[in-house]
Amino acid sequence: MTLVGCIGGGQLGRMLGLAGLPLGLRFRFLDPSPSAPAADVGELVVGAFDDPVALARLGAGADVVTYEFENVAVASVVQLGALPPYRALELGQDRLVEKEMFRRLGIPTARFGSLAETGLPALVKSRRLGYDGKGQRRLDADEVISDHELAEEIVAFDRELSIIAVRGTDGETRFWPLVENAHRDGILRVSRSPVQGAPQAEAEELAGRLLDELGYVGVLAFELFDVGGRLLANEFAPRVHNTGHWTIEGAVTSQFENHLRAILGLPLGATGAVGSSVMLNLIGGAPPSEQLLGLPGAHLHLYGKEPRRGRKIGHLTLVGADEETVAETLALVESAADG
Amino acid sequence: MTLVGCIGGGQLGRMLGLAGLPLGLRFRFLDPSPSAPAADVGELVVGAFDDPVALARLGAGADVVTYEFENVAVASVVQLGALPPYRALELGQDRLVEKEMFRRLGIPTARFGSLAETGLPALVKSRRLGYDGKGQRRLDADEVISDHELAEEIVAFDRELSIIAVRGTDGETRFWPLVENAHRDGILRVSRSPVQGAPQAEAEELAGRLLDELGYVGVLAFELFDVGGRLLANEFAPRVHNTGHWTIEGAVTSQFENHLRAILGLPLGATGAVGSSVMLNLIGGAPPSEQLLGLPGAHLHLYGKEPRRGRKIGHLTLVGADEETVAETLALVESAADG
Repeated sequence: MTLVGCIGGGQLGRMLGLAGLPLGLRFRFLDPSPSAPAADVGELVVGAFDDPVALARLGAGADVVTYEFENVAVASVVQLGALPPYRALELGQDRLVEKEMFRRLGIPTARFGSLAETGLPALVKSRRLGYDGKGQRRLDADEVISDHELAEEIVAFDRELSIIAVRGTDGETRFWPLVENAHRDGILRVSRSPVQGAPQAEAEELAGRLLDELGYVGVLAFELFDVGGRLLANEFAPRVHNTGHWTIEGAVTSQFENHLRAILGLPLGATGAVGSSVMLNLIGGAPPSEQLLGLPGAHLHLYGKEPRRGRKIGHLTLVGADEETVAETLALVESAADG
Repeated sequence: MTLVGCIGGGQLGRMLGLAGLPLGLRFRFLDPSPSAPAADVGELVVGAFDDPVALARLGAGADVVTYEFENVAVASVVQLGALPPYRALELGQDRLVEKEMFRRLGIPTARFGSLAETGLPALVKSRRLGYDGKGQRRLDADEVISDHELAEEIVAFDRELSIIAVRGTDGETRFWPLVENAHRDGILRVSRSPVQGAPQAEAEELAGRLLDELGYVGVLAFELFDVGGRLLANEFAPRVHNTGHWTIEGAVTSQFENHLRAILGLPLGATGAVGSSVMLNLIGGAPPSEQLLGLPGAHLHLYGKEPRRGRKIGHLTLVGADEETVAETLALVESAADG
């Protein structure tokens, strides 16, 4: 039986396991927490992500190893020959290197680099280890920024989009319909797909350039700003992604199943939408299941995590719901958040 | 966190677990085999199904207990207060008692009882513990049949149908679209749903009578013969059922999720079809996953069981596939069977 190793045993690992068990796969996860969410669907190796001994235990007998977060050490991925390929991880871990690659590939971005290049006001971000809005600040007056930081033009975008893509070992590439995302306090709250009038072909063309450049294998999420119909690349994540959770019920094949198919060299599944989906993150807390499951078209995903302020403990996908139901559900979810 | 106990850790338990983990449930299974398929999605208590000590270990701390096969001892279900209610199990375990109940409820059946009642030729079945065609024989000449047996009229049916139903603790009842089933050698090979021109309303009416009579809670499968447009009840199973596996991808809510919702007193999910589904059992062996996953609309479910002659090791559901693809896939699956 095929064994998949995964660096990280959070909710993404858990959903990979739920998608992979029906394919006859078995799973082993590496996580420092003995109560990691993925432990319900596979063996758990408790250890540090960068501990070579723990990594060796993760990899022992595994047919393939993958990872579920983008701050994993490149050395760990190299040690285990994990997929997606380490080069994608390495390039994505430095915002400046990432954006320079976009520029080299002719993928449009907001202006970036020094304050001289961006003008003021600007967003200053740490080059490494920033996510969910941590490690970034707005600058309205000139200031010396360090070599570990990067200035970015503040873009008045119309909407935040992302495209989830998958590329197989044979180079075949597929894309799910574009997703429109809403963040608050730097955390994703809502994703919708498909998006009315979305520039699907252009997004696929840009993401395809990136995937081919990286010799990518697996699922990749590519975040974009839509500025008056023009797409600007923000960043990519070399993994399954929160803005692709709607694909579990909302697409023929989910991002989780296709990631596994890709890294195992299996044929990719169809990525078309099966309806109109809205995904709501459950952050800090969740309304009672009785309430959520009574909503039409609701699919609940709890990650088995204790509620804690700002923590994603689950998500809810509404397929085919009207806008009124979506608005009411959003209010319900927000009122339970951080409760 | 809610803990669900399940008597039996086969593929049905495994699929209950896969449906229930996203709802934030945890699982514990009782099975005599240490390699039971459900062990991948929950804790496994290894023991005999009728061992009171093992049953007590299964039930300890569980919020609800259910079962995944219909030959579980009634005493075990009573001991744990398991759902569906023991009365449904008890009535269904004796074919004669079951059919007498159908008659009492005005649910049409083929003639049954003694050979005098059925005429010849007739099918003679053991009253208890028969499934998958085991324990039945055709009788063309008169013979003394034992008290442990039951004669049934041989019906020239046009098609075998089943309806999967779910009833909540509050008595709310929902039905999935009718399923058309094809057996060979007494084992289910193919299920299709929805069925063109199926007598949905009549089937729901008959199944509803049965559910209400039993004060049922959970999913129930009701097998019917269609004889020139007239429905005759064959038998029911008080559990999730092979002829309902297509609901995982082919319906808004699967039989597995709704069974859990029902026994936990949660609102039931919608049971409508999301397309046209064909489910093929993988028996004795399976074609390579590379082949199956390359088929359009294919969803693979392997149960983690070693191939063995006549053993169901998985199933494949094709959603929205044309008849040609279905026929080709069936040939592929049959050629790998018992290989």
